[in-house]
Parts: sequence; C-alpha cells; structure tokens
Amino acid sequence: MLKPGTLYLIPCPISDATAPWEVLPAGNRAVMASLDYFIVEQTRTARRFLARAVPELRIDALEFRELNEHTAAGAAVEALLDPLLAGRSAGVISEAGVPGVADPGALVVEAAHRRGIRVVPLVGPSSIILAMMASGLNGQSFAFNGYLPVKGPERQRAIRHYERWARTERQTQLFIEAPYRNAKLFGELLQSLQPDTRLLVAADLTAPDERIAMRTVAEWRCAEVPDLQRHPAIFGIG
Amino acid sequence: MLKPGTLYLIPCPISDATAPWEVLPAGNRAVMASLDYFIVEQTRTARRFLARAVPELRIDALEFRELNEHTAAGAAVEALLDPLLAGRSAGVISEAGVPGVADPGALVVEAAHRRGIRVVPLVGPSSIILAMMASGLNGQSFAFNGYLPVKGPERQRAIRHYERWARTERQTQLFIEAPYRNAKLFGELLQSLQPDTRLLVAADLTAPDERIAMRTVAEWRCAEVPDLQRHPAIFGIG
Repeated sequence: MLKPGTLYLIPCPISDATAPWEVLPAGNRAVMASLDYFIVEQTRTARRFLARAVPELRIDALEFRELNEHTAAGAAVEALLDPLLAGRSAGVISEAGVPGVADPGALVVEAAHRRGIRVVPLVGPSSIILAMMASGLNGQSFAFNGYLPVKGPERQRAIRHYERWARTERQTQLFIEAPYRNAKLFGELLQSLQPDTRLLVAADLTAPDERIAMRTVAEWRCAEVPDLQRHPAIFGIG
Repeated sequence: MLKPGTLYLIPCPISDATAPWEVLPAGNRAVMASLDYFIVEQTRTARRFLARAVPELRIDALEFRELNEHTAAGAAVEALLDPLLAGRSAGVISEAGVPGVADPGALVVEAAHRRGIRVVPLVGPSSIILAMMASGLNGQSFAFNGYLPVKGPERQRAIRHYERWARTERQTQLFIEAPYRNAKLFGELLQSLQPDTRLLVAADLTAPDERIAMRTVAEWRCAEVPDLQRHPAIFGIG
C-alpha cells in the first residue's frame, strides 16, 4: 500500500508590500518547490504568491482546488484529500499569513487527521502572534476571538465581556474587524472601555507602514486618531 | 533631541536541532546584524544563537543584559531601556521561539510602550500558532492558557474548565506543561476528559522528530502512548 502524502500548511506574507522571503523562512522553499497540488482559499492569489516566491515553478502545471466559504461542504472537503490518500502531497495556502487559523483551511486539516494523513505546519507571519509579541500584555493567558459581532447589542456585549475577562481573569483579549469598519470600531472602543483599560492597535503588520501602539483608553482619548480605515488591524485589550 | 532607538523582538528556533535560517526569515538577519545591544532571557544561549545565525557578528563586542525571573524587578526593567532613550536600538531574545509571549520579554515591551519607544516584532516560530495551524480545531476562537496548575485539585479544575469551555463556547484551549511532567499529564488527560473530546498533542515542533497527532480521547485510549517525556509539547482541547 502506498504511504499517504503529507498535508503541508504553507504561510504567505500578510502584506502585498512585503517580499515573500523577507517574512518566510528559506526552509519553506524546498517544500513549496516539491509540490504540484495546492488547496487554496483563492486560486488567483495563490498562483500569484507561488509565482513570486518560487519563480522556477511551472505554475500552469500545478493543480489548484479552492476551499473557501463557497466550497466548504463536507463531501467537497473530503474529496480534496483523495490525492493524498493516493500518496500525493498537498500544500494549503490561505489569503494571508498562516493557513488553518481563522480560515477554511482548518476544515481540511481536521479531515486529514481523521484519515490518518500527516499534517506539517510551516513557519510564517501570524498577525495574532505578532500582535501578542508587540503588546507587552499577558502572554501566559490570552484569547483570540476572531471578528467582533456586527450587530449593536451583541457587539456592545462582546466588548464589555472582553474587557471584563481581561481585567478580572488577566486574560489578554484579541479581536479583529473587517478593515472597512476599523475606524468605527476604534471609536466604539474609546467610548465603551474604561479609562485605565489598555488598548493595543496593530495595523499593517510586517508592511513598511506597520503601526503598533499600546495606550490606556484615557491616553488614546487624547491621542491622534490612528488611520485604520481599510487597513488590516488587530485589536487587543489588557 | 535624539530619536529613541527601536526595540526589536527577535525570534530564535524552538528546537536546537533546527538550523536557524530553516525557520527564520532572511529579513531578520539584517536587523540582527545591525544591533549591538541585546536584552535576553539567558546570555549563554543568546550568544550561541547569534554566533550560529550571524557568524560575522563579533559576539564579544556585543552587550547582553539578562531579563528573566531573577532580574525582572520594576526598576531593573526600566533601566534596560535607558540605552534606547539615548538612541540605541536593542533586540529581545528569549530561550526559544518568539519573545514576549509567555516569557519575561513582555515586561520590557510593556515598559517600552509607556516610554514611547517603537516596538517591532519579527517573524519566527511560535509553538502556539504552529499547534493551532496543525490542529484543525476552531481558530476563530482559541485561548492559550500557559502552564497547567501543578497541584492536584486546581489541576483537575483547570482541565475540567478547559474542556467545558472548549465544548460549550467552542473555544479551542491550548496549554503546556513542564516537559518532565508531560507523560503524567497525558495520562491525567485521558482519564479526566470525555471520550468524544478531541485532544491535540504536538511535540518537538519544527524539529526533525516533530510529532503532531489529533484524536478523540476514546481513540487516544486505544492508541499507542506517545513518547512525550522530556520533549517540549503543547496540548489542545476542542
């Protein structure tokens, strides 16, 4: 019987302004160059990333299958793994940063474990961990909460809940928002949070215009409003 | 007035068996080569890492100051930043992986923000994020809880609490243990957790003998016991 292939989790840059090998270890390159099958969030961006990072790859000879909100039904996810059961390895690539955390890539990883396929995560940029490093907040206990709820009352409840946990349990709380709502969110945070709560704003991480700022809410209220609108950002409360 | 220096957070490999540039991006190298002042968890290991990663550095000409459980008093931490206020940049290096998350490096980052010093996190291996990528567990909501309590009753309570949160709130729970207690912990987890709870064990991440396995507790009870004793490992419940 053929040994099953390996599912490699292949990070890409967070920012388009960053050259791939500035933020990805050289060790990833040999893995990427050895693969001809990729499970990707979006074919167009994955092709562009591979062409830029590994110019000797013949992109047209590679097979791409999409795994995203439109294709992530159970049977479709299982079918993505058929080539691996036949001994072929695959790379998972998400839209930005490390795959498998807060993107549909996790579904194929979960299925791979159930079917006894080896999973190998490669090193790359994660805005979650970069934000934690740069925060100075408690890293012995932290939670990433994904997107804030969109609707008013739940949104208010979530913000209050995160602040309460950060203060009473000393658990750092990270969350994100769709970039086009970042400016609105920042205003809401300054309004809702207590003056001595510490608020981290980390925008455009790894990009040339990366901005990381950590202030108490009282200090933020007197500071210049950061330009976050349409910039990917991650927020933290401690 | 002099512009203050920058505090760079410089990751190192997780495993001694890994060549630095296999798991660190080339972009970090220029930053490391430009610095002559390092705030480190342990001088001996930081010197060894720098000598291996950037052979052209004259290690004896560099200044190292230690920040660890023995030196982490408030005034001492502030004093580490005096050179930065005078315009010199510094690199923070922890014992393994990314600095500032679950190590004393966070203290100097926190002080840097208070004093208006720019903080720049560099990309590198984090066992937390590698474990999350490789788990297939919910990455839209996860918590890293650091070390499990050592004492029996609190330890049991923590394990039950993490399982309850993982199941009712769908928040993935990650935690670690001192490597010499890993085998004991694994046994306790199999005993305490419910049969259909999913348990991730990720040992020796990024090392040649990396092992990542994800099974339900019922499956683990029938599987071979992994060799975790004295191997750095991270555990996850989902």
